[in-house]
Amino acid sequence: MKQVRVGMIGYKFMGKAHSHAYRDVPMFFPKVAKPVMKAICGRSAEGVRQAAEQFGWESWGTDWRELVQRDDIDLIDINAPSDAHKEIALAAAAAGKHVFCEKPLALTLADSREMLQAAEAAGVKHMVGFNYRFAPAVQLAKKLIEEGRLGQIYHFRAWFLQDWIVDPQFPLVWRLQKEIAGSGSHGDLGAHLIDLAHFLIGNLTEVIGMSETFIKERPLPSSMTGLSAKGSGDAAKGPVTVDDATLFMARFESGALGSFEATRFAPGHRCTNAFEINGSKGSVKFDFERMNELQVYFTGDADDVQGFRRVLATDPAHAYADAWWPPGHTIGYEHTFIHETVELMQAIEEGRQPVPNFADGVKCQQVLEAVDWSIEQRRWVRIEEL
Amino acid sequence: MKQVRVGMIGYKFMGKAHSHAYRDVPMFFPKVAKPVMKAICGRSAEGVRQAAEQFGWESWGTDWRELVQRDDIDLIDINAPSDAHKEIALAAAAAGKHVFCEKPLALTLADSREMLQAAEAAGVKHMVGFNYRFAPAVQLAKKLIEEGRLGQIYHFRAWFLQDWIVDPQFPLVWRLQKEIAGSGSHGDLGAHLIDLAHFLIGNLTEVIGMSETFIKERPLPSSMTGLSAKGSGDAAKGPVTVDDATLFMARFESGALGSFEATRFAPGHRCTNAFEINGSKGSVKFDFERMNELQVYFTGDADDVQGFRRVLATDPAHAYADAWWPPGHTIGYEHTFIHETVELMQAIEEGRQPVPNFADGVKCQQVLEAVDWSIEQRRWVRIEEL
Amino acid sequence: MKQVRVGMIGYKFMGKAHSHAYRDVPMFFPKVAKPVMKAICGRSAEGVRQAAEQFGWESWGTDWRELVQRDDIDLIDINAPSDAHKEIALAAAAAGKHVFCEKPLALTLADSREMLQAAEAAGVKHMVGFNYRFAPAVQLAKKLIEEGRLGQIYHFRAWFLQDWIVDPQFPLVWRLQKEIAGSGSHGDLGAHLIDLAHFLIGNLTEVIGMSETFIKERPLPSSMTGLSAKGSGDAAKGPVTVDDATLFMARFESGALGSFEATRFAPGHRCTNAFEINGSKGSVKFDFERMNELQVYFTGDADDVQGFRRVLATDPAHAYADAWWPPGHTIGYEHTFIHETVELMQAIEEGRQPVPNFADGVKCQQVLEAVDWSIEQRRWVRIEEL
Amino acid sequence: MKQVRVGMIGYKFMGKAHSHAYRDVPMFFPKVAKPVMKAICGRSAEGVRQAAEQFGWESWGTDWRELVQRDDIDLIDINAPSDAHKEIALAAAAAGKHVFCEKPLALTLADSREMLQAAEAAGVKHMVGFNYRFAPAVQLAKKLIEEGRLGQIYHFRAWFLQDWIVDPQFPLVWRLQKEIAGSGSHGDLGAHLIDLAHFLIGNLTEVIGMSETFIKERPLPSSMTGLSAKGSGDAAKGPVTVDDATLFMARFESGALGSFEATRFAPGHRCTNAFEINGSKGSVKFDFERMNELQVYFTGDADDVQGFRRVLATDPAHAYADAWWPPGHTIGYEHTFIHETVELMQAIEEGRQPVPNFADGVKCQQVLEAVDWSIEQRRWVRIEEL
Repeated sequence: MKQVRVGMIGYKFMGKAHSHAYRDVPMFFPKVAKPVMKAICGRSAEGVRQAAEQFGWESWGTDWRELVQRDDIDLIDINAPSDAHKEIALAAAAAGKHVFCEKPLALTLADSREMLQAAEAAGVKHMVGFNYRFAPAVQLAKKLIEEGRLGQIYHFRAWFLQDWIVDPQFPLVWRLQKEIAGSGSHGDLGAHLIDLAHFLIGNLTEVIGMSETFIKERPLPSSMTGLSAKGSGDAAKGPVTVDDATLFMARFESGALGSFEATRFAPGHRCTNAFEINGSKGSVKFDFERMNELQVYFTGDADDVQGFRRVLATDPAHAYADAWWPPGHTIGYEHTFIHETVELMQAIEEGRQPVPNFADGVKCQQVLEAVDWSIEQRRWVRIEEL
Repeated sequence: MKQVRVGMIGYKFMGKAHSHAYRDVPMFFPKVAKPVMKAICGRSAEGVRQAAEQFGWESWGTDWRELVQRDDIDLIDINAPSDAHKEIALAAAAAGKHVFCEKPLALTLADSREMLQAAEAAGVKHMVGFNYRFAPAVQLAKKLIEEGRLGQIYHFRAWFLQDWIVDPQFPLVWRLQKEIAGSGSHGDLGAHLIDLAHFLIGNLTEVIGMSETFIKERPLPSSMTGLSAKGSGDAAKGPVTVDDATLFMARFESGALGSFEATRFAPGHRCTNAFEINGSKGSVKFDFERMNELQVYFTGDADDVQGFRRVLATDPAHAYADAWWPPGHTIGYEHTFIHETVELMQAIEEGRQPVPNFADGVKCQQVLEAVDWSIEQRRWVRIEEL
Repeated sequence: MKQVRVGMIGYKFMGKAHSHAYRDVPMFFPKVAKPVMKAICGRSAEGVRQAAEQFGWESWGTDWRELVQRDDIDLIDINAPSDAHKEIALAAAAAGKHVFCEKPLALTLADSREMLQAAEAAGVKHMVGFNYRFAPAVQLAKKLIEEGRLGQIYHFRAWFLQDWIVDPQFPLVWRLQKEIAGSGSHGDLGAHLIDLAHFLIGNLTEVIGMSETFIKERPLPSSMTGLSAKGSGDAAKGPVTVDDATLFMARFESGALGSFEATRFAPGHRCTNAFEINGSKGSVKFDFERMNELQVYFTGDADDVQGFRRVLATDPAHAYADAWWPPGHTIGYEHTFIHETVELMQAIEEGRQPVPNFADGVKCQQVLEAVDWSIEQRRWVRIEEL
Repeated sequence: MKQVRVGMIGYKFMGKAHSHAYRDVPMFFPKVAKPVMKAICGRSAEGVRQAAEQFGWESWGTDWRELVQRDDIDLIDINAPSDAHKEIALAAAAAGKHVFCEKPLALTLADSREMLQAAEAAGVKHMVGFNYRFAPAVQLAKKLIEEGRLGQIYHFRAWFLQDWIVDPQFPLVWRLQKEIAGSGSHGDLGAHLIDLAHFLIGNLTEVIGMSETFIKERPLPSSMTGLSAKGSGDAAKGPVTVDDATLFMARFESGALGSFEATRFAPGHRCTNAFEINGSKGSVKFDFERMNELQVYFTGDADDVQGFRRVLATDPAHAYADAWWPPGHTIGYEHTFIHETVELMQAIEEGRQPVPNFADGVKCQQVLEAVDWSIEQRRWVRIEEL
């Protein structure tokens, strides 16, 4: 059985999700190459040491440059803050390591293209962390489309709604600072929608967007981690430099129409990553808050029993389901990472590129920036312009 | 076009629903016999006079004995309080009038049998007001079962949940007094479930029930109508003499198992008249609070898209839908009465008994009393014992 | 009690809905001015004669010019095809009649402005048929916003999804012909969304849209009425001259962001007229296919029980509910017209303009055309440009 | 940090779920005592060897008697088929080991009492595997009841619906054989409902049940594991000796009424472990197929916004949520076992009995048998009779 020795940079929200995936793959997918958790790396010695122990890494360090040079590492997993992705990825590729990078690939399209070229030039495998593709219900949507069971696609509408910063007293965490996060709801949430659009429907040809930052200033945080943070009412304030909400419309190469909305100002939506697809033969609906379910409609159903079916994607007929529990026994958020890691391990073992890879990351970044241009210039922007 | 001249006794909640049905039938079902609203009758001259004007009756009166003797009346509609049903029905039948009686047919099985015999002896048409049969979604459930599309039926579970008397200060209206209402949740709500069971699954063979009155005393009401009433905290109190909740289990002749629950103590349920049926080939679910919908599941669906379908019973393929609005434009509670009246008018025109008729009312009463016996005697009771 | 004598032009889908509203108002809202159904008018003598009898109009005719001159008419109700609205409305106003006009007010903004000016000049009451405002659940949304219970509004997203022309063999009915219908999904469905946006959130400042006609040619119909029609596969074909789907993004004067989508190509959606509103203190969601329900979320709820509440707008606390049935007993599509008519009758009785009136119709038309411009010119269009 | 050295007997469906829990506890709950996966034991050497490697156990064996005597084991985890529970548990307790036993504790009440007495006599900690208690949404229901936020409880209705044996060709696996499984839907599914009733509402006083085996004979299986199996149409058949469905009604000591139904013949329900509770101040609803959600209703909500709230139990205010992902990022079936194991580790560390323990297992068995008696004797049975 082949093994893949992993060195990971980052140890917070995504670091925890990735670590757990590495732990679970050998147990639930024993036939794929086994990830070996060699080393974890982060800026805070105390934080990373504790993470190493808690998550089960063999070793830890604070110098990622050293990590990417280690001989006993096959794969570098990058889930540090977004502004660090590029430099690490370039170094890892240069060192001949496979690279698994969290989304967004980079802060700019140019940077992400540089990363793709570097990975290709180095001949390594590369993957980008669009984990939502790997929900079994999303895989089912893909299957229905590929098999033609939804017919010609007319509409893709998607929205990623959250509410964790609705309170104006929520502090100015790094995700609200452009120089670290690149963008706000657009790059964080919209990027997932764009990738799902690419995965499910295909390429876009043109876009036009709009954007808003509802709360312009926020208290500086006293501490932060993941999506949570502590602030205080009398703290000094700093400017929010990313978008709170970004919407855009799009056309697909196939002729389908697209509608996208990403916002962190939708009270009641903790994590509504949702889409609906309408085709000539049927429709599907997905909402990540009920991630085990896909709503499916077929125009060909008998006249008196037409209606959206609530399909629980936990049957043997569904992707990855056999590895888990009996039908009706649902899985959760972390499983998207496990399935993603399965794809990565399989691709490395089979000597092929995993999907989604840096090319998908570039394509996503291209759309993100096209939307940015369309907002700045108040006009439709063709994707090929970038 | 045949006409049916109607004289109605009762003018409150049910009187309003019936009146509206008589008004709407000629407009939406112009091909069936036309009900003519000749006369309305009630105890309070002022109340009935106002109702006559508001609802559109040609005349009004306070003496139902006079009404049932009028030559220009073909059909007597009885929706007075339950304790008055029998006497009026007997008189109407004796006078050769067709009789449409709200449920429960009578306060006792013996009385209801007497009513059936009288109607049969008189050779008149008779109907009982189990209006929920006439929701298009319920009709769809019936069709699926009759066509064998659910296979052999294993389970019928039904519950009618309301919450209008959860407040202990809610006053002692007539529906909480045994001598007028006959019973509480059992006869009021459970009766509908029993009729739906008969309609959809067939006859029961044996039952066992349990029952409770959670609030034993309530303030005497200062005024009351329909389901609403006014009381006051310092009013004198009187004993509640009916059940607040009654549950029972049952076996059907077909071998199916039944589970029934009627309660007025289920906060959050304004009018959850709901059932689920499981058969060897599929299942259906219905909830009156979403009365336009039937959830339908087929075991024969393709492996990867099995799931309950939310069928909106507003398509041309659904009962009564053609008379109303385009697909997706829903109907409401009052439409069950309109459809019920369509059946009544058609039956009279065609010279056949409408369905459900007094025989169905008797059958329902038989089960209600069998459950009562089973509660008193703490044992299974066979329906044929009564 | 005041009476309002009505003359109506049109007798098909909307004519039926309006007629029923006039019939039901006196029964369920006996305290408002009573509509008297004096005369109905249409092009086909046989059709209108039959409608008069079936719907309960005192008289009928085929010449609307004659109708608007009758002395015994107070109100002209226009629900003829859209291209006839303007001429009739101008004549009715000139004759001193109040005017109730179905949406869209006219085929162009200029025409609709002319209609508003004529009605104002004549000093008559005028109303436009945006009936969805009158669903109790929509009224509840309005109340929550007006009382500040949702806080500052950030997002309004709305979509009106239907599927009745997904089949390419569905014939070329008048609603698919620009010269009669004015526009397709945009004017038919999007107009309702725009009006709801105006009603609930306020004025828009700028828009940008996109549009598509997926099926360019369809069989010529052999007969048609309402939303249904008969065609045949070997019929000659004609060009579809309206949009199958139109989307647009918008900004509101208040700073809120808007997203709108109208399509007839969404299989599984018979009549999904839906919106969601997100504010600083809460959110609401509405879907017309479950028109009795409003989903309501408050950020101020206790930490451990935050979630969207499914409010069934049938309680005494909800608009219009007292006139109908006990809580939990739902109403349907036609009730929106009844409530709309109540507003019209009340306004006429009180000597004030009803809401929504022609000014609202103009405002809606202004947005519709601004979107059209933005599509043709591929740019953001400010509402004030028109 | 304290460690608990585990020896486990069983390695299939439950063995996998338990193993994963032991693996995940140290990562997600680093502050509780750490389970150390010392040894796994099963009848098939090849099967258990493979499981040991895949699940991460340090050693494996086929002789459980040897295992329970090992000095380096603190805790024996029993998830072998039900007929083996008692003997192993007695031996483990005699050897001074803590015991964690899957439900049902034993095949009979007498056996389960013997197990409890043995564990108490030995002074060891004991736990029984009612894992559904540990869904955060169920914990929330418990909290609301304990804090009095639902008021006095009137109703508990629960049903566990599955459909995995609806096909008559599904083979005669061990779960359908009384001598191994003890009972069918009653002991397998109903037992969970009974435990939830005890956990949430309290003790029962009397019960009456009914039961059915719809398919009397099934093909003998060629192989089986977990809930899946392979059979063939021409295989010899054997009798099904357990119930396909069992229903019962009950009274609680508190005066509440209970309704229970367990069936494997409910097509469309893969794993609907659901309950609803109605109290004087509110209601809650739970369905395991949407295990992250609790529907919550309060009578005290403002008049115009009363409705069931869909609470996603993934907020910091919810049990166990802090250990996982940000709000809205759901968890799955396996997490109930992880939380259960957290309770077990904490109890051992703190020197107290875990909850639920063998006393809860006995209480559950007592109700199961009382229901069995009530079915055989066709009468109400008081729990204290047993």
